[in-house]
Amino acid sequence: MNTLEIIHKENYSIVRMKRGKVNAINHEMVRELSIVFEEMEEASSIKGVILTGQPHYFSAGLDLIELIRYNEEEINDFFRAFGELYDQLLRFPKPFISAITGHSPAGGCVLAITSDNRYMAEGEKYRIGLNEVAVNIQISQGLIDAYAFWLGEGLANRYILEGKLLLGPEALAAGLVDDLVPLNEVLEIAENKMKQYLKADPEIWLATKKKLRKHWLEKTSIERGSLKEAAKLWWKPEIREKMEAYVKSFSNKKNTSK
Amino acid sequence: MNTLEIIHKENYSIVRMKRGKVNAINHEMVRELSIVFEEMEEASSIKGVILTGQPHYFSAGLDLIELIRYNEEEINDFFRAFGELYDQLLRFPKPFISAITGHSPAGGCVLAITSDNRYMAEGEKYRIGLNEVAVNIQISQGLIDAYAFWLGEGLANRYILEGKLLLGPEALAAGLVDDLVPLNEVLEIAENKMKQYLKADPEIWLATKKKLRKHWLEKTSIERGSLKEAAKLWWKPEIREKMEAYVKSFSNKKNTSK
Amino acid sequence: MNTLEIIHKENYSIVRMKRGKVNAINHEMVRELSIVFEEMEEASSIKGVILTGQPHYFSAGLDLIELIRYNEEEINDFFRAFGELYDQLLRFPKPFISAITGHSPAGGCVLAITSDNRYMAEGEKYRIGLNEVAVNIQISQGLIDAYAFWLGEGLANRYILEGKLLLGPEALAAGLVDDLVPLNEVLEIAENKMKQYLKADPEIWLATKKKLRKHWLEKTSIERGSLKEAAKLWWKPEIREKMEAYVKSFSNKKNTSK
Repeated sequence: MNTLEIIHKENYSIVRMKRGKVNAINHEMVRELSIVFEEMEEASSIKGVILTGQPHYFSAGLDLIELIRYNEEEINDFFRAFGELYDQLLRFPKPFISAITGHSPAGGCVLAITSDNRYMAEGEKYRIGLNEVAVNIQISQGLIDAYAFWLGEGLANRYILEGKLLLGPEALAAGLVDDLVPLNEVLEIAENKMKQYLKADPEIWLATKKKLRKHWLEKTSIERGSLKEAAKLWWKPEIREKMEAYVKSFSNKKNTSK
Repeated sequence: MNTLEIIHKENYSIVRMKRGKVNAINHEMVRELSIVFEEMEEASSIKGVILTGQPHYFSAGLDLIELIRYNEEEINDFFRAFGELYDQLLRFPKPFISAITGHSPAGGCVLAITSDNRYMAEGEKYRIGLNEVAVNIQISQGLIDAYAFWLGEGLANRYILEGKLLLGPEALAAGLVDDLVPLNEVLEIAENKMKQYLKADPEIWLATKKKLRKHWLEKTSIERGSLKEAAKLWWKPEIREKMEAYVKSFSNKKNTSK
Repeated sequence: MNTLEIIHKENYSIVRMKRGKVNAINHEMVRELSIVFEEMEEASSIKGVILTGQPHYFSAGLDLIELIRYNEEEINDFFRAFGELYDQLLRFPKPFISAITGHSPAGGCVLAITSDNRYMAEGEKYRIGLNEVAVNIQISQGLIDAYAFWLGEGLANRYILEGKLLLGPEALAAGLVDDLVPLNEVLEIAENKMKQYLKADPEIWLATKKKLRKHWLEKTSIERGSLKEAAKLWWKPEIREKMEAYVKSFSNKKNTSK
């Protein structure tokens, strides 16, 4: 695993994304996350999974700097694989908690909203959200349904239309995260929650999770149509121009922020 | 246009309702709103629409004083046209923002909840909400679904059953309005939001709006059955008696309030 | 009626559960509630119903101390009858308000969430919620849908997965109860709400209630499959062992608390 570090605890595991300082998501990371979660689904000794990141960055989202160099086939492959990973995480049949160690925009938020709980590092600067509209990426129906599940349809509508990134307190008020905790405690608090879940009867716990997500999963599908649309809009000249400007500004910002 | 004033800005338009001081909705106003929004949907130079009202009144709702004189055919025609206008606004395929300049009960709220955002003039006195139950009008399934979209099903249930009109801070807490702002800034703030939307790629923005409303629109239909029911209950003697008393009390109140 | 006390007011009725101090729900109480609500549905002189309990306990939920002695057939019969009562209350075609006089966990909460409004006695100690996961009972899809209706899907997900019992202020913030009021005023406030409802045109009020619950009722069914599953898990040895320990701890706690 080049992009992930796995830590096995007594009866659950921690998956720590470790791709540079910001955990930008490229095809390799998608592939490795998919493999790891499949293994953990099958391993009977692993009763639950915590996904976490690096200090200050859970994940900065899609690695636009790498993706902008993908050719058409590579982009199609990437979006298909990312959609399948999303679907896999959404249906992960064990307790699954996100310990959000910092920024978690767009693709980072996509990973986090598939989990059962989200604990986020407090601090005024960290932001999370589905800001696709603001960066000219076509959001899928599945992500909209996920946001509506956690935030309610009204807030999901407002925040997605403006491509808003939420500060921690906004994310807490909106129901996007469960709690804000100090950065150096976020993993421990996620582990405490995991231990609480693992005290319940696993058959009852899992059947309950399935029922809680029943209507959500019925609405959602991998939607290859929608992914094709995202891939097609990817090449629209005006969008590409804006994205290149965004990548450039983002690269500059990285140099000045920590 | 007798009931509307249209202001064209660089790449969006403002529709200001101007039927007396309170913008009570009669058949003529419904017809004119429908024509104007159809024109704006087709005009490629108009990228978005803001709907606003008069100081202190966005719209007082249906003009019961006029409607109570309609005969059976006129009532049926009115409810059908109002239902079709609602459906048209709900599907308006461009950014659409309400600048709520004051009171917005019942029919006024119906117009507002079709838009993407609602900015409401602050001030303890202004009220907004679907108070149909309190004034003995049969609410349609479509309006209930709209309220549930913005407020969540639980609050929608509570407020609709009691026919509650919400003060600004209640409407803000419930998610019925996005923000409360000074009366003399409400239009400007709506325009700023419009300008923000118009910076996004229009194809991506519109596809996103459609996805956000997909499940809502699937639930909703013009429901002629429901409109027939509203029209039928309109003539029930006990209801008519209460409505006449309400119209009378409302007329008296208008003389004492501003 | 051994477990209920009925108080007839001018045009509505109060059903007070009175089975010991804590109103633990056994098969007899389920049967009597079902009979009483059927009579009140049919009685044209009764326009609405308020369900209430004893000071400090609305209902402690299922009477596990009695249920643990039921044989397989009795457990199946109990769960079927309780599911049918739930369904009956959910569809009760008149105003129906819960005056929650204290604790209302699990089965107590199940009764309360079928009503149109819930007023709960304030006081730091009273708790309400669907804590099935924490006590190793399989929750049904119908209860999950009900919780999602009142709390939204996100909060329902979080609270049900952890089997959380909510304190009054948490229940108020979550939308599970409408208001917190002093214990000795909770019935009076429920009656005031009932009187408000009974001022509306009954035909319009009831049609509105039906529309508000339309999508909810379409989702929900008695789900005998789910009840069979609950009954089957009831006999799983690990679960039974935990339940016996819980019953024991609960019996001990009763001796030390009021």
